[in-house]
Amino acid sequence: MIATLHTHAAILSTGDELVMGQLQDSNTRWLAERLTERGIRVAEGAVVGDDAGALVATLRRLCSAAPLVVMSGGLGATDGDLTRQAVCTLTGDTLITDAAAAASLGAYLRSRGRELTARQLRQAQRPSRSEPLINSVGTAPGLHAVVGSTDLFCLPGPPGELRPMWRDHVAPLLRPDPSHAVRAHLLYAAGIAEADAADRLKALTVRGSDVTVNMTASGGILTIRARAEGLQTAELSARFEQTLAAVRDALGRHRFAEAPASDAPPVEALCRAVLEALKDRGETLATVESCTGGMLGQLLTAIPGSSASYSGGLVTYSNELKTVFASVPASTLDAHGAVSRQTALAMAEGALRRTGAHHALSITGVAGPDGGSAEKPVGTVWIARVSASLPADVRCFRFTGDRADVRARSCSGALTMLLFALKGAEPGRLLWQHVP
Amino acid sequence: MIATLHTHAAILSTGDELVMGQLQDSNTRWLAERLTERGIRVAEGAVVGDDAGALVATLRRLCSAAPLVVMSGGLGATDGDLTRQAVCTLTGDTLITDAAAAASLGAYLRSRGRELTARQLRQAQRPSRSEPLINSVGTAPGLHAVVGSTDLFCLPGPPGELRPMWRDHVAPLLRPDPSHAVRAHLLYAAGIAEADAADRLKALTVRGSDVTVNMTASGGILTIRARAEGLQTAELSARFEQTLAAVRDALGRHRFAEAPASDAPPVEALCRAVLEALKDRGETLATVESCTGGMLGQLLTAIPGSSASYSGGLVTYSNELKTVFASVPASTLDAHGAVSRQTALAMAEGALRRTGAHHALSITGVAGPDGGSAEKPVGTVWIARVSASLPADVRCFRFTGDRADVRARSCSGALTMLLFALKGAEPGRLLWQHVP
Repeated sequence: MIATLHTHAAILSTGDELVMGQLQDSNTRWLAERLTERGIRVAEGAVVGDDAGALVATLRRLCSAAPLVVMSGGLGATDGDLTRQAVCTLTGDTLITDAAAAASLGAYLRSRGRELTARQLRQAQRPSRSEPLINSVGTAPGLHAVVGSTDLFCLPGPPGELRPMWRDHVAPLLRPDPSHAVRAHLLYAAGIAEADAADRLKALTVRGSDVTVNMTASGGILTIRARAEGLQTAELSARFEQTLAAVRDALGRHRFAEAPASDAPPVEALCRAVLEALKDRGETLATVESCTGGMLGQLLTAIPGSSASYSGGLVTYSNELKTVFASVPASTLDAHGAVSRQTALAMAEGALRRTGAHHALSITGVAGPDGGSAEKPVGTVWIARVSASLPADVRCFRFTGDRADVRARSCSGALTMLLFALKGAEPGRLLWQHVP
Repeated sequence: MIATLHTHAAILSTGDELVMGQLQDSNTRWLAERLTERGIRVAEGAVVGDDAGALVATLRRLCSAAPLVVMSGGLGATDGDLTRQAVCTLTGDTLITDAAAAASLGAYLRSRGRELTARQLRQAQRPSRSEPLINSVGTAPGLHAVVGSTDLFCLPGPPGELRPMWRDHVAPLLRPDPSHAVRAHLLYAAGIAEADAADRLKALTVRGSDVTVNMTASGGILTIRARAEGLQTAELSARFEQTLAAVRDALGRHRFAEAPASDAPPVEALCRAVLEALKDRGETLATVESCTGGMLGQLLTAIPGSSASYSGGLVTYSNELKTVFASVPASTLDAHGAVSRQTALAMAEGALRRTGAHHALSITGVAGPDGGSAEKPVGTVWIARVSASLPADVRCFRFTGDRADVRARSCSGALTMLLFALKGAEPGRLLWQHVP
């Protein structure tokens, strides 16, 4: 018997906390991305609560519609964990206790000073004809059952347990169509409006083609996704490479990084590009932040190894600390206000002097919702980049969005200014830049 | 004819970017929470791509299963926007152009310097027997159609457009069962392990009761949700209030805030509690961060109005800046290392002196993935709280999780230490606290 190819799949997430809106389901998106990158089309996603009838009915429907079903949740030790029993009902099977799973569960709990109670032992049960999937980081093993000609994988709900189980025990068992090729690539760009980039990329984004290009914007950073999917041929590969070259050409100096498919938020790519450019030059950065309150430092230090290029920073939230920490003259604050070219420049110069870093970035603005004026409305942010060996750059922005948007966009703006300076490229007027 | 009550509902999200895992669907969770808080049970959530056949089939299935269906996505101007046509197919209707929607769309685009093209005009089309729902913040109107005895609401995909449309045009049309009562309340606690809190709350979390209590843990903060749902009776109300009192009693001094249903992450509740406690005392806080790199400042300044109580901070990522910024003696760093009681204390004392704030919090630790040692493994973090008028408090933690977890838990730990001090309560050993 030749096993059915996994041409397409369905994803099911279960849990009362999901249908009550108490918890954001992130497993569906993550699994959809993993399946898509293997060339397995996701036909449908479903969410149901901890209800035996709904669970069995939905599993039955999905298993008869797709050769591959991946579900998450319902494998814990509480009365609301119904997945094991639902698989039995669906397949006419009975629950048995898996000896190896029970031993491993007992060892796991003992290593944390906890007991293997009767309730905990439920997690070692499985339908007799299913295979357990080892959980290396938690208590609940997963399940692999065959329902008709469909492979059903049941994974734990916590993403920290689901993801390693997927990588180690599910991904190797997938059977994507070998004649079907999928290639994907991400390109990042900054300092350009989405509409302008869309114009440049227009000819490349033809719907229904087997090579597609699409774009999303987040915090001033554009993520361009190129994707080729179809019969594995040299023509498809060549067209994909031509498309990548055309995207690079269209983005010009605004492109700052590329990557294969990535889970990371776009600002992480920008931070990595800045830290790498600094490291290449053997230089360091200091930050001085007012309205972002530490967000720029937090973003940079989220990257392991950032200490090689990031020295540290000042959070000069009050005017007094702009003077005490960054040596901004009180007369500058009095004459021009905290949100001004002069203050932004003095903040960055003060940080550069105090830290001995090669570059300093400062951010001072009105993040809202209050504090705006006719002259400096909410969203007005001054950003300065000063460097030991380059002329300074100070810009005013008028960011749109709420407080969180203004702060995130301020950080992206500052990082973009530094990145272009490190690359020796003049970016021109940046997205949201305001020329008073 | 008496309209059917909306006893339960289904939610559908559509878009290729969702089934390809390129975009996280946040609408399902948000809508589920809104429906649940009105006492409308969410029976199912579904996600399908931009595929006319799948969209019509799924809508048909959901509309025959629930008296209320809320879908999002597919209302834009591209060839992949299929919702309007799908509703026509489902109801045997034809598309017409809505004159008022066209006029409003034209005005919206003109106000942004754009033209009303034939493509854009598609967004003013609707099934002739449906009602348009006004979009106050974007281009695509929503739709309200009646399918058999089911109310079908079609909303735009972008959350910033969906949410106001829901509030203004959908929520008023809901018909929850008036005899059915729903009450919900959140309580937050810190400084206690989830398992210990679960023990204390055990008697209150009986599954299948009409008053339920459940708990989630995130970054060291526990969120306890109490919920009453059932026939509107004085008994139910009384039982709900008794349950809240019992939860408060069980959490004791660990409870730090309460709120009605909230979208905000739990750490935001902790930050708000700290800022309010400071404001009540007329006091200010400064921060000095090493491994968290600005995250603590960023979290506090995410709250509007935080400038009243938060002065600012230092990001002393390099050892050199621990000395330059926070006046940590080089001899302290040499003798004890950057991750030590002595350095944490010196950092906080330096910040307190330099800023003149009433309290200072310092964080210094090994966030990982590298930098750990046998003596100070990854996750080892020292946190100090010093105050002008209170004895200092310095604690060592051994946080579990990855770099992001360690950093987030460090911030929660620091905020918890300060909050208990401001409340004059000794929290005892905190979650993840390590007593060497």
